[in-house]
Amino acid sequence: MRIDVYPTPDSLVGDLYGKTVIVIDLLRATTSITAAVENGCRMVVPVVSVEEALICAEKFDKDEVLLCGERGGVLIEGFDLANSPLEYSVDRVLDKVVITTTTNGTIAINAAKGAKNVIIACLRNAAFAAKAASELESDIVIICAGTQKKYSMDDILCAGAIVHHLKNLGEYGLCDLSITAQKLYEEAQGNIDKALLGTLHYEKMRALGFYDDLKFCFEQDVCDTVPVFVDGAIVKMR
Amino acid sequence: MRIDVYPTPDSLVGDLYGKTVIVIDLLRATTSITAAVENGCRMVVPVVSVEEALICAEKFDKDEVLLCGERGGVLIEGFDLANSPLEYSVDRVLDKVVITTTTNGTIAINAAKGAKNVIIACLRNAAFAAKAASELESDIVIICAGTQKKYSMDDILCAGAIVHHLKNLGEYGLCDLSITAQKLYEEAQGNIDKALLGTLHYEKMRALGFYDDLKFCFEQDVCDTVPVFVDGAIVKMR
Repeated sequence: MRIDVYPTPDSLVGDLYGKTVIVIDLLRATTSITAAVENGCRMVVPVVSVEEALICAEKFDKDEVLLCGERGGVLIEGFDLANSPLEYSVDRVLDKVVITTTTNGTIAINAAKGAKNVIIACLRNAAFAAKAASELESDIVIICAGTQKKYSMDDILCAGAIVHHLKNLGEYGLCDLSITAQKLYEEAQGNIDKALLGTLHYEKMRALGFYDDLKFCFEQDVCDTVPVFVDGAIVKMR
Repeated sequence: MRIDVYPTPDSLVGDLYGKTVIVIDLLRATTSITAAVENGCRMVVPVVSVEEALICAEKFDKDEVLLCGERGGVLIEGFDLANSPLEYSVDRVLDKVVITTTTNGTIAINAAKGAKNVIIACLRNAAFAAKAASELESDIVIICAGTQKKYSMDDILCAGAIVHHLKNLGEYGLCDLSITAQKLYEEAQGNIDKALLGTLHYEKMRALGFYDDLKFCFEQDVCDTVPVFVDGAIVKMR
């Protein structure tokens, strides 16, 4: 079996048929989605545009829906929640339908359509997502969201964590970016913050003052919830 | 000023207007082109297809042209030279027009059209290519050829060498992949072979028995020739 890592959805080569895709947007879409699912939302519906979010919301009762997401890292006007994982607490999300649109993350999730299985991962659930993926016994494709359509180090470090865990669980052939990601993660493992100094998306989060979010996003293997994307919605893997 | 590194020509974001592009296909197109220019060919004409190579050859006398390139790493039927840099010796290339088409490299060179300056680089001329680029005082975009439209570690290590040298020559902002490439290169510097173990293109070269080529491609900063791509042809920078 193989593990292929792609730095952005656009860079994807080949089809996903029969494969398990793991989607990563560490800062912060897949961390927030994992938090929402962990905290008991009914489902998360990822959509690519604000317009699509509003149309989707009309399918549900107003009080069962949360409109969520960001543009440029901040709340969309008229929406309920932005993209901070700390907002997706039990008291906000329990039993709700979370409709979310983020700059990079939801595009990456939608790019995974056509795969046999689609898992949502972040550092908080990395070991558990890797274990779930390995048990599906198929080739694995890790799609990183990237930033502004480019390679983003934060996503690659998280991909490296997944590769690291998968390699401890079975025999996998690695593409060149899988090798790079694993190496970067294993060197950075104890200090993700330091490894990301000077990188674009991390520095943007710091400039916006999102220190608590970063701390939360960098906690590793503390959450055993593995969200999966099935028929257009993200729910907890059974 | 900035340095942006792209893993493949397809991944390029934004335009190249006013910028200096450095093209890298370490194994082996840009190493071979650098050898051909160093060894006195009149020019190298990179074309993307075998058909285009044959049409281009008709513009010159038969005895002044060499048809060169590879598909799948080996000689194209009816062509004069394949893609081994060792073939591009003085006695073969002096005063010749070298028309070349390779799987990944010439596509990357042609993707650089539109830039203010286009430099061809490899490990053999990395320090000199970086110096030449820095003196052009513009933003720098490093386009890696990649392998099979994917991130290829050999190219990224060479990009890292260029970033390393540029950072010693001036103040540059780095994109995330520039940071990664510099880090990987600085760790691998003394032993490029070891850093590439298990990577796709390197292992393919080994499987084809191209050990002498690899040794030649991994020699660093031994060649002060800096080829530039101007008006469709590659010549020595004056």
